[in-house]
Amino acid sequence: MTASSTPWTGARRRVHMQEVGPRDGLQMESAFVPTADKIALIDALSAAGLAKIEATAFVSPQAIPALRDAEIVLREIARAPGVVYTCLVPNLRGAERAIEARADELNLVMSCSETHNLANLRMTRAQSFAALSGVIGLARQAGVPVNVSLSCVFGCPMEGDIDPAVVLEWAGRFMAAGARGITLCDTTGMAFPSQVSRIVGLFRQRLPAAELTLHFHNTRGMGLANVLASLDAGADRFDASLGGLGGCPYAPGASGNVCTEEIVHALELMDFDTGCDLALLLQAAARLPGLIGHEIPSQIAKAGRRLDLHAPPPDFALWRDRALARDA
Amino acid sequence: MTASSTPWTGARRRVHMQEVGPRDGLQMESAFVPTADKIALIDALSAAGLAKIEATAFVSPQAIPALRDAEIVLREIARAPGVVYTCLVPNLRGAERAIEARADELNLVMSCSETHNLANLRMTRAQSFAALSGVIGLARQAGVPVNVSLSCVFGCPMEGDIDPAVVLEWAGRFMAAGARGITLCDTTGMAFPSQVSRIVGLFRQRLPAAELTLHFHNTRGMGLANVLASLDAGADRFDASLGGLGGCPYAPGASGNVCTEEIVHALELMDFDTGCDLALLLQAAARLPGLIGHEIPSQIAKAGRRLDLHAPPPDFALWRDRALARDA
Repeated sequence: MTASSTPWTGARRRVHMQEVGPRDGLQMESAFVPTADKIALIDALSAAGLAKIEATAFVSPQAIPALRDAEIVLREIARAPGVVYTCLVPNLRGAERAIEARADELNLVMSCSETHNLANLRMTRAQSFAALSGVIGLARQAGVPVNVSLSCVFGCPMEGDIDPAVVLEWAGRFMAAGARGITLCDTTGMAFPSQVSRIVGLFRQRLPAAELTLHFHNTRGMGLANVLASLDAGADRFDASLGGLGGCPYAPGASGNVCTEEIVHALELMDFDTGCDLALLLQAAARLPGLIGHEIPSQIAKAGRRLDLHAPPPDFALWRDRALARDA
Repeated sequence: MTASSTPWTGARRRVHMQEVGPRDGLQMESAFVPTADKIALIDALSAAGLAKIEATAFVSPQAIPALRDAEIVLREIARAPGVVYTCLVPNLRGAERAIEARADELNLVMSCSETHNLANLRMTRAQSFAALSGVIGLARQAGVPVNVSLSCVFGCPMEGDIDPAVVLEWAGRFMAAGARGITLCDTTGMAFPSQVSRIVGLFRQRLPAAELTLHFHNTRGMGLANVLASLDAGADRFDASLGGLGGCPYAPGASGNVCTEEIVHALELMDFDTGCDLALLLQAAARLPGLIGHEIPSQIAKAGRRLDLHAPPPDFALWRDRALARDA
């Protein structure tokens, strides 16, 4: 933090925005987005200044057909200097494919909730950890850094609250196994600012060398507030999804990932340096409904930026002249 | 502020929640909500612990037919002790009606933007001020306190930024004319936390005796963050609308008023004392779609409270047993 930043004013403090839409967002869509459109989307995001882009996932094409073109996408995007192209990888087979395709980083997933991990991955957490440790070993041999996304850090939709000590324990084990970074994921939008402030503080104290990312959902309207609480506790990397793509499987119609252009719009107004070009983000977001066949949650896409002004009503001059005549 | 409250933790600090849905929300609806349903809604809000409820408006029934039953509503609601029932009043005629109907408070409106005031009220700000000063005089004679809601405090959708000095000047003139309180309104969702922190700080310094309310819209996703910035600057009264009723005239489909149950849900999690019973608010919100004929923006209505848990998937026990068998 710079000396002069406050919870409400960034004083040009650098914030790293990481885009998850091409993977986390498109994976949820029923329509297959053509490969060329995915590549154009990622290229637009690269040009807009994102620090990291989760480009795709190396998973079974039968399990997730939406991302069956992972190799082609990773081969044909225009890699911008300084942008990290990360890929979700569930197992050794996926890691081999991602490394072969020259992913800049592998992103692994495990849940802090035993119930959620079993329900989602059909493994105990201990089984997941053992398997993912093998993936980290492979990646290290290949010289490819690994990030681990921990789900349900701020609560599990089936178990309820998760003890922060459990979160720190798993994060510490993954760091000891060789991960570069950890993402604390608010998988179903249960995080609230007091809790976020406390957990981010504990994490930075315990694991100061880890590259820490926060991944929030706006399911209960607290996404931006949670970002601000994280920044105040010293975090500076955030996942977000262009247009707010990606819903919540537990609440049809509810918001999922925080929206990239909403967070960038707010943080830039607050004098944080997101590195992003908001106009380019909005151009890219405007093309999303055409790709996915429905409207996007983004509030900025609907309402525009705060200083996108409107013309007065057509009769304005008449009303003004009448009003002024009353004083004459 | 209590000594131990921080931007992220309220330490049981008292926050006064003021409901604007029955007036600001229903006024925007195309369908007329039957009078008995309005009364039941207000009674439910009274029982849920709101500090103040804007019950209706004493305006021309031709101009706003949705609120043509103002007298009946105000007569037939069950007034809960300690709850202030305020009514919007545009002019002397409305003030006479509201006083006759035993409103606890009159709420007057003027815009800080000359363009917005002319476009909305067909008067210059000076003309509005002169007319509203007369209303304040009448209310004082009758012993009824007056609140003045200043529109476009954080920006005008036609003019852009509004100088905070202009806001403070008009607020000071209304307080000198005898108002009890001032509401700083973010009429079209242009406020952002740094700006809010600064303006609330200036206001409290200049007009410490005024009862200060903040009225935010969530148009660009910054509603809760603006509430938190206000609290940190010492404000403790907030307008909000049950279900998030009330859209934005400049952006079809965009959010309007911040949602009462979203703000209460967040602030109670953060250990602020809102005085509200969230379960009763959610019951009242659940009846809104039936009254207005469409879904409500409320995220909490869609997703539930953070600890409203879900059952594991039907096959969960099978998956768990299979996973555990692998370790046996």
